Amino acid sequence: MTILALELLSQHGCFGGVQRFYRHDSREIGLPMRFSVYLPPKAVAGEKCPAVFYLAGLTCTEETFMIKGGAQRVAARENLILITPDTSPRGANLPGDAESWDFGVGAGFYLDATEEPWDDHYRMYSYIVEELRTLVIDTLPVNAARIGIMGHSMGGHGALVLALRNPQLFRSVSAFAPIAAPTQCPWGKKAFSGYLGDDETTWLDYDATLLMEDCATAPFPAGILIDQGLDDQFLAQQLHPHLFEAACVSAGQPLTLRRHAGYDHGYYFISTFVEDHLVTHARQLAALD
Amino acid sequence: MTILALELLSQHGCFGGVQRFYRHDSREIGLPMRFSVYLPPKAVAGEKCPAVFYLAGLTCTEETFMIKGGAQRVAARENLILITPDTSPRGANLPGDAESWDFGVGAGFYLDATEEPWDDHYRMYSYIVEELRTLVIDTLPVNAARIGIMGHSMGGHGALVLALRNPQLFRSVSAFAPIAAPTQCPWGKKAFSGYLGDDETTWLDYDATLLMEDCATAPFPAGILIDQGLDDQFLAQQLHPHLFEAACVSAGQPLTLRRHAGYDHGYYFISTFVEDHLVTHARQLAALD
Repeated sequence: MTILALELLSQHGCFGGVQRFYRHDSREIGLPMRFSVYLPPKAVAGEKCPAVFYLAGLTCTEETFMIKGGAQRVAARENLILITPDTSPRGANLPGDAESWDFGVGAGFYLDATEEPWDDHYRMYSYIVEELRTLVIDTLPVNAARIGIMGHSMGGHGALVLALRNPQLFRSVSAFAPIAAPTQCPWGKKAFSGYLGDDETTWLDYDATLLMEDCATAPFPAGILIDQGLDDQFLAQQLHPHLFEAACVSAGQPLTLRRHAGYDHGYYFISTFVEDHLVTHARQLAALD
Repeated sequence: MTILALELLSQHGCFGGVQRFYRHDSREIGLPMRFSVYLPPKAVAGEKCPAVFYLAGLTCTEETFMIKGGAQRVAARENLILITPDTSPRGANLPGDAESWDFGVGAGFYLDATEEPWDDHYRMYSYIVEELRTLVIDTLPVNAARIGIMGHSMGGHGALVLALRNPQLFRSVSAFAPIAAPTQCPWGKKAFSGYLGDDETTWLDYDATLLMEDCATAPFPAGILIDQGLDDQFLAQQLHPHLFEAACVSAGQPLTLRRHAGYDHGYYFISTFVEDHLVTHARQLAALD
């Protein structure tokens, strides 16, 4: 296949490895897209390493997790490559795309839009699952058979949905404070009606709780890890982890859902528990046949 | 003494402790000032703990180090309180104070200005050494006899200067990529001429290299730690660590100046080495009589 031009924007030494920011012309998005990569020391030395995608939340960019998450220290030690895409197309300049922080720019919701005018560019699902995943496999020392995915809030929704629909591609999954049942919360209803239209049957493919309810057997028998802060201001109205928890019970999916008193929705929470997530991914990916 | 009102703006659970942001009406600055505090679990439980001030660099705020530095994990383990002030007054609205990123707002240089119109508000030296230090001792579980100071770039300059002028108040000191000889670099000359005027004899009190040259004996016999990236774009023109190194030799001051290939001026560099700094502060502060 043709590799579209990959432009290295910057590179920074970090815990013995390198933090990189790239830009490329995306076929799926129809616009330039940015993403970030952390390569641990072994990957810098050319060894193929397992990789974990991190999908960020509303208003974030490809930089947020890398500069705020405190993940590179652990990734360096565990020999994990980290990859973070942006959270939406940028520069489409569609009417209303910058009017609200929970729809449009910075809020792509990791789906393929079907409604005009969003359907031309807002294709974050296919962008990550097909284009970006293939791109990093082809251009970086990624072990293609050992790729996991994680995310936060909107990106926790994205990680769960992408993994549940592609368990053969994303072999481990975890989330921080995910939007776990988007068809049943204001953020999800707004995004799905805008991007997918009013026919709610088209929403089902993007709701982690509904996808899990449809599983006849556990898609991730090694378990799914979710951390949720109990001081999270979005917990009651937007996140609904208990619904995903019930779906896991019905599907026989092992789930570790940790509820943490005193923690909120932000990166002070994420950085506290990111080590547990990365260690879990490393262990699960290493245990694969 | 009278404690001016201290307003808690936000609090976030972080590594078992709490990350706080405060605002107070500053007597020295004549305006409201913000600062951030990380309290490790033992301090949350009421135990007095050693504290380390972190002074940030140009354009930063009281939030930068706390959200990008990855320090709380180590501070929680080492029982260190972390305190970060803002980098300048905000809201003075002086002519030209927002025109350049290396002078005025976000660029207070941790000195007491003597030139109009800056002398009314730009008093970051006295603000930190007297007002903020006293405030945190009086209102937080800080062990007043075990306070250290560190900083980055402009804040590395600040940390070295404040410590060298007040070794009885700041008992340990370290820096990342400090402006180590500000009277001999463009940033320092611009700031000092603007804040202190053209009589360069008034600049001497704010130059770490000149202050160290004046020391008859080592002010920090346990040693000073400085980390410097060799890919730092400001190294050649602005930072001059070799001049501070020579001054330490002449004063008999033990200095560990580590030069790191592949590291630049940013927080990917700082986060990589922050653990070494905090462990060094904890050890030096614990060893005091």
